[in-house]
Amino acid sequence: MKKIINDPAAVVAESLRGLALAHADLLRVEDDPAVVVRTDAPTGRVAVISGGGSGHEPLHGGFVGPGMLDAAVPGPVFTSPTPDAVQAGITATTGDAGALLIVKNYTGDVLNFETAAELAAADGLDVRSVVIDDDVAVKDSTYTAGRRGVGGTVLLEKIAGAAAARGDSLDAVEALARKVIGQVRSIGVALTPPTVPHAGTPSFELADDEIEFGIGIHGEPGRERLKAEPADALVARMVEAVVSDLPFAEGDRVLLFTNSMGGTPLVELYLAHGIAERLLAEHGIVVERRLVGPYITSLEMQGMSLTLLKIDDELTELWDAPVRTPALRWGS
Amino acid sequence: MKKIINDPAAVVAESLRGLALAHADLLRVEDDPAVVVRTDAPTGRVAVISGGGSGHEPLHGGFVGPGMLDAAVPGPVFTSPTPDAVQAGITATTGDAGALLIVKNYTGDVLNFETAAELAAADGLDVRSVVIDDDVAVKDSTYTAGRRGVGGTVLLEKIAGAAAARGDSLDAVEALARKVIGQVRSIGVALTPPTVPHAGTPSFELADDEIEFGIGIHGEPGRERLKAEPADALVARMVEAVVSDLPFAEGDRVLLFTNSMGGTPLVELYLAHGIAERLLAEHGIVVERRLVGPYITSLEMQGMSLTLLKIDDELTELWDAPVRTPALRWGS
Repeated sequence: MKKIINDPAAVVAESLRGLALAHADLLRVEDDPAVVVRTDAPTGRVAVISGGGSGHEPLHGGFVGPGMLDAAVPGPVFTSPTPDAVQAGITATTGDAGALLIVKNYTGDVLNFETAAELAAADGLDVRSVVIDDDVAVKDSTYTAGRRGVGGTVLLEKIAGAAAARGDSLDAVEALARKVIGQVRSIGVALTPPTVPHAGTPSFELADDEIEFGIGIHGEPGRERLKAEPADALVARMVEAVVSDLPFAEGDRVLLFTNSMGGTPLVELYLAHGIAERLLAEHGIVVERRLVGPYITSLEMQGMSLTLLKIDDELTELWDAPVRTPALRWGS
Repeated sequence: MKKIINDPAAVVAESLRGLALAHADLLRVEDDPAVVVRTDAPTGRVAVISGGGSGHEPLHGGFVGPGMLDAAVPGPVFTSPTPDAVQAGITATTGDAGALLIVKNYTGDVLNFETAAELAAADGLDVRSVVIDDDVAVKDSTYTAGRRGVGGTVLLEKIAGAAAARGDSLDAVEALARKVIGQVRSIGVALTPPTVPHAGTPSFELADDEIEFGIGIHGEPGRERLKAEPADALVARMVEAVVSDLPFAEGDRVLLFTNSMGGTPLVELYLAHGIAERLLAEHGIVVERRLVGPYITSLEMQGMSLTLLKIDDELTELWDAPVRTPALRWGS
């Protein structure tokens, strides 16, 4: 294992220290339990909170700041945060307007965020959860009952954060989040495995001419193991999987999110993005917004994912709204 | 070789197509020769132009837009663009106020940008070049006489672009660029090699327990091959190399740029950034601005670089000025 780390057990804590130093204008990191909290916590508006295992950076800590998340609760690498960590994130940010928890659909996350929400309710706070499950690859998986939450999470955090920032009620932010979850679909592919620091060996094996189609963000198995193929064929396979699922139809307006799993460089990612745009145009699907880059990753895994979100005027306005976080920033 | 590509010879052209589709609000791509040009070309102010071999994305095409570059001229992967490509970039953007070419110190780049500048001068355009050589690792190298241009290029492009945007004369933008070049130093390290698409095999070999200290952004040899070591020791070695070179001294105000070479994930990069901040504080060096992320890469190479720029009020103001490009965006 080759990594720029010290003690594998201290990776997340040491990384959060660097995050806090780099972005002190936006966030602070509370220790024990670890929580990333927006510097200017909300007053009088809904808090938007997410979290989950580390190793997917910039998700979630890189999305803390005005217009997106109020708190991010990082667990150990690929491991859910504890209920008391989630509770600490709620306590640090939630006032009378309540909070929305954005939970990716993994068994541990769902359980621990739910427990934290109940503890917060016992303290008199109005806390709701939404569970995102946008991965079309498989029905159940290593860490999941039902579909996994993947790339759509980034778009959901942006849009829910924008709704909270403009002063929407908790009912309204929750309804909007459920709308996004209903309209977003993703698929991923891996060329190489990630290596979890405390494991020290690659999470799975792939032959030199193999790829894993439908990979999860923790390296969970996907739909099938395929022979490596040219980008044109691979991206067509990915677009087909996503478009046919919702299904997306001719005339639909969409946001296309082309995401690197970490180790795939931008030169390849933009190449894939161009293919996806062309194929969607052939379907008559209208790409009106784009996001291209490594935003939800699996450590150093080489691979990518495609996410399609069906948008309308309201979602577009919320997507375009100002945001100022370490990883996403525009309009401010 | 595992990559998301079609024909290895077409990687750059296909990737630029995706870049143009993703960021049509900011830039367009001219074909044959390939040039990335800002949509709203400058009128009445200095143009700032850079370029070089591809494979270092987002450098340079990802920095085209208001407040940074007016044109980026991409060569093939790790290969200088031709003089006529550079000339096309100049022609597309340069008016009476002239242009500044930002050239990384590699023999091919220096020669081809110089030839293009002469051709432009023959057309009556006032075009100046500055050569950046911020890498302290080695004096001469595979593609270089003198020091190589690396991470400092990103900071230089931002600051020169901001000066041009506020209406500085070509004399002033050039002087400012030379000031930045005099005050910026970098060092890089590789954990794994990159694979150039048209080569198909890794650029060099590193044993499982080895790292290359002082790596170049094309995988050129550095100072020495070392046994892998904990992040604390490695980052200390990097900070020492940079600080002792200028040298940076107690009380200096700096911008610290912690860069991923592509394959190193953010969780490791922030960890390293935190260590660097702590060590600089021990030196009495005051980190006032930061940039953390993959901004000048070497394809999928795992590794990182540290860049230190000595700043004052003027450079800070120019760094903070609004920028709107695919890869760097704030204040607008």
